[in-house]
Formats: sequence, C-alpha cells, structure tokens
Amino acid sequence: MSQISLKELTALSQQVLRHHGFSEPHVEALTATLMAGQADQCASHGVYRLLGLVSSKQAGKADPISEPEVFDQAPAIVRVDAKGAFSPLAFRRGLPSLVDKAKHCGIAAMAINHCVHFSALWVEIEQLTAQGLVAIACNPSHAWVAPSGGSRPVFGTNPLAFGWPRPNSDPFVFDFATSAIARGDIELHRRNEQPIPEGWAIDAQGHPTTDPVEALKGAMLTFGGHKGSALAAMIELIAGPLIGDMTSAESMAWDDGANASPYHGELIIVMDPARFLGDTTAEHLVRAETLFESIQGQGARLPSQRRFKARRETAATGIVEVPTALLNDIKALLN
Amino acid sequence: MSQISLKELTALSQQVLRHHGFSEPHVEALTATLMAGQADQCASHGVYRLLGLVSSKQAGKADPISEPEVFDQAPAIVRVDAKGAFSPLAFRRGLPSLVDKAKHCGIAAMAINHCVHFSALWVEIEQLTAQGLVAIACNPSHAWVAPSGGSRPVFGTNPLAFGWPRPNSDPFVFDFATSAIARGDIELHRRNEQPIPEGWAIDAQGHPTTDPVEALKGAMLTFGGHKGSALAAMIELIAGPLIGDMTSAESMAWDDGANASPYHGELIIVMDPARFLGDTTAEHLVRAETLFESIQGQGARLPSQRRFKARRETAATGIVEVPTALLNDIKALLN
Repeated sequence: MSQISLKELTALSQQVLRHHGFSEPHVEALTATLMAGQADQCASHGVYRLLGLVSSKQAGKADPISEPEVFDQAPAIVRVDAKGAFSPLAFRRGLPSLVDKAKHCGIAAMAINHCVHFSALWVEIEQLTAQGLVAIACNPSHAWVAPSGGSRPVFGTNPLAFGWPRPNSDPFVFDFATSAIARGDIELHRRNEQPIPEGWAIDAQGHPTTDPVEALKGAMLTFGGHKGSALAAMIELIAGPLIGDMTSAESMAWDDGANASPYHGELIIVMDPARFLGDTTAEHLVRAETLFESIQGQGARLPSQRRFKARRETAATGIVEVPTALLNDIKALLN
Repeated sequence: MSQISLKELTALSQQVLRHHGFSEPHVEALTATLMAGQADQCASHGVYRLLGLVSSKQAGKADPISEPEVFDQAPAIVRVDAKGAFSPLAFRRGLPSLVDKAKHCGIAAMAINHCVHFSALWVEIEQLTAQGLVAIACNPSHAWVAPSGGSRPVFGTNPLAFGWPRPNSDPFVFDFATSAIARGDIELHRRNEQPIPEGWAIDAQGHPTTDPVEALKGAMLTFGGHKGSALAAMIELIAGPLIGDMTSAESMAWDDGANASPYHGELIIVMDPARFLGDTTAEHLVRAETLFESIQGQGARLPSQRRFKARRETAATGIVEVPTALLNDIKALLN
C-alpha cells in the first residue's frame, strides 16, 4: 500500500485525464467523483476507476470533450444529453435545474441520456440530500443477470440508491445492486480459484453453479428471488425506455465485446420535504430520527456508516491509501 | 366452495357496508376494490376483507362516512386527507388531480394521509397504467418486521408496487411485501401446527426460529437481507415522515392492541411517458416490449400473470368462488 495525500492524488488524476484529452470540465467532474469514492475508502469506486475511464475513451466508447446539453423537458422534468461522455459532468450541468424544479413542484425527475456510467450513485444522491432533498436514483448496466425463473441474462446489475437528508448528521443513504452480488466479486473468486456461494449465479444451461468460470459464462442472479428480479425489471424500464435510453441488453449489444463501461441513461427522482410538509417539515423530520434510533438502538446498522466513518478519517489526515501496483498503473497512463 | 355471480356478490357487499353505516361513496369505492381482488381470485384481498372492514369500523378504528379532502399541495403534489376512513375513496377523490399533474408536469406525487389501509396496491396502480402512466406506490403498515441485523420489530410489511402501461396488453405490474412473507402465512402455519421455513422470522430473543408461535411473539424478517431491509426503511420514510404520516411503529402504537387495519399514509409517484418522450413515445414503448419478450421467451414469468388470467376467466363466466363458511360469515354481518 502507498500512502498519498488526497491533494496529490487529485492532481495526478487531473493530469492523467488531461493527458488523455479530456476537456477541463470533464477533468474536474470526473476527478471530484473519483476522489469522493477514494475519500470514503470505496476501493472499487475510487481512483481505480481511472483505468477504466482511459481505456473506455481509448476504445472509442466514451467521448472526452462533449459538452452536455440540458433540456427543460417539462415543468418537473429536466433532461440532459451527455452525448456519449461520462455521466458526472451531465449530472453537474443538470443539477441546478433539478433542484429548482423539485423545490418548485415538490417532486421532479432528471433523465440523463447517452452517458457512460462508471461511478457509484451515492455520489450523486448526496449532492441532493446536502440540499435538504430526498432522492432516488437508478440505472441499467450491461445484461449479465437472469430474470427469476429464467436462464439467460437480461438485466444489468441495476443499482438502486436512495438518500434522506438528516439535520446535523450524515444523510441516510443506501446504494445497492439488484444483482445478488457485484460482478467483480465473481471475477475475484475466479482469479483466486475459489468456489462462489450458491445463489449468486447459474451456468449457461441455467443450472445453479458454484464454479466462477461457469458463472461468468452463464448468468448472475438477482438478490431476493422474484422480488429482486421485479425491481431489476422496474429499473430497466424507468431508466431505459421511459427516458428514451438503452436497456442493459441494448447497452451490451452496443458495447460489442469492447468490455467498456455500460452506456445508457439514468433516472433521478427528487422530492422536497418542505413542499410536502410546509410549516411542519422540522417536526416530521424529527420523527424520521426516531425511526433511525429504533434501528440503531437495537444494535442494527444504518447503511453507509462505514463510508461516513472513512470520510471523517480521510478529512482528519488528508491521506488515503492506494495499492502501490495501482498507483504505478495510474502513473504509467502518463506515458 | 360456493359459486356466486360477481353481480350478486357486489350487491351483498354493498348491503353489508350500508348496514354497518358506511356512506354511499365509501360503499361504492370499497366494494369496487373488494370485487377487483375477488375477480382476480386473490382470496386474501377479495371479499374476505369485508370482515376486517366491519370489525375495524366497529372497533372505532375506521370512520365509515368521512368525505376525503383534497389539497393542491404543490404544482406536482396532490394531498388527500382521508380523515380516518378507508383509503379507496381518498384515492378515487385524488386521482383526477394526480393524473392532471402528472400529464402536465411529467412526474407527480399523491400523498394520502390518515387513511385505514386494507387493499392491495395493484388495484390503485392499474387505475394509473390504464391511463398510460407509470406508477410506483408504497405504504408502511404495523411494526412487525425487524431491520437486518436487529431483533425487534420496526418496519411494517411495507408493500412496494409498480406498474408500466403496455399498449394492447395487460400492464406490467408487481406488488410485493418487503417482508420475507405475508404475516398471514405465519398465522396459517400456526393454525396448522406446521413449522415455518428458516429466513421468515426470529423469536423474541432475536434468534432464528421455525416455530410460528415464537415467530409471532418475535419479529418477521425482510426479504433479501440488508437490501430488503434498506427498502423497507425507505418506504417508512417516504410514505411516513415525508408525507407527515405515521411510521409502522406509530401505527402500531395507535392501534393499541385493537388488531385493526394499519392506519397511516400512502405515497404514489406517477410518471407520464409522453412528457418524457414526446413524439418518440410509441417507439420507446415498443423497446419495453422487447424486454418483456426476452423474459418470457426464456420461460420466465412476468409478475401478475396469474391474476390477469383469473380476471379473464371471471369476465367470461361472471362467476367467482367463495368459501361457503366465508359467505355465511359475510351474510351473518347483515344481522
């Protein structure tokens, strides 16, 4: 492990992205997203993702300079066309309109179209809870996951994220894949030649398997049986055809074996407690705190607590840990 | 089993509700909901629920005559105060405004407050898909379900329902409890003195149990481990404090042992594909059909198909089956 200051890592990330032809707005938006993951010690969504950003760009699967175009689609809908670039800049460009619409209408939606997605949804969710808003976000990915009762991949790992603002506290945030497990976990078991637990995947014939090689040839399963499968279908629909964008199967066909980041849309729904509750907002937010206390008071954990703890540690020291080999791989991107 | 025409059963339901002092608008809205469940052969959400409607009213836990009040809360929010009555009339009264707002703003929400809930959410969802709208609905219930990693009940069975309109076809609809199983299933096992499967519940000490008696003293579990638990928490928040209404724990405290239907709020979010997609709506709805075909084409089932088949059978014959003992119990309510 190498220790490196977040400041230095930020500069390195910017340097790499500039070197590979990303425009300054994309350099900033992408680096902010990478550093948010790194500061929370999310190894899988931190600076590690720089490798994928560069390789997706090199494969011609991500545009490094497109300026997103924002459309005032309807009184409560903002649409952002990312034009084949990564999603963070599109999110950033649409955010002010999304917040305005939610605060005016009470509920609003942002559809991001034609974006290459690589980051965790909580990074976006927390930009909304920071403004006192409730947010739900989801997107398709690549078709790796079979529907309940089926044998062939149809769904992506289709994450669903939710955030609730808490006065004087970290927000309540969850962000989970509707697949039983992340695809990377199966790849990790293959690399380590370890069997995978039952319930993660089926082989190409549709039979349950604990062999990671067979699993990668077959299909992953959703979490929670037919209920998780129903949720995965909902995400395909509302962050796919509803917003005029690709399903996971279409994203995979578009990828055509390049193994780039999924290319698709994203849907974010935002609600303003102040418009639902008016003068009684504070009083009802206190009742949410009672719910959280009843969960934590019995020793159960709220989601995201590990991340928030890591964030405070990083803020205190200004230092993060990065595997030395990864750091070298990143520096090699400057050649 | 008794065979009875839906027409005759409708008249019987109306007669019972009138006899127990329900106002004519409530008689109509409640009977329509009961008959929708019965026509779909959902035994648990059909005419069986008449017994609960009457007993909740008799226990003073449901107002039989309150006229719901509709508030234009924000450009994209309609709020309906059910004033302690059952929910179907409140839904009916708020529906026109909800549809107007969704068609104007693109996305809209309806908050139903202070209602007694007894019906399945799909009955409401399908009234929205019938108008070409996408809908999501959820509500808390009574605190019977422990959070993941906990041992004491906090969440209700908290159903989540979703509907997607399909041109020339039944809609895509799911409606599931975020608990591992319906509470009634545990009660059924107790009555039959059968053990329950692992994963359904824990005893009062927080240990896994297969004894239905211990389970009913302890807590139910959510489906899908920590992910299902996170969803259950989201539903508590967005259909509880966000709309100024009770959490499942508060609903249970309000019940105070009466064993009446849960008393709380409900949140319905509606999106209009035509506002998201404009001229390209039809073309993108066709892409959703491709998704459904890729699920059904591999032998997997879409949710709600059993119900839709039953509905067609009922429509063809006009006849439904009701257990004879239940029919007698219902007729006894006229004395």
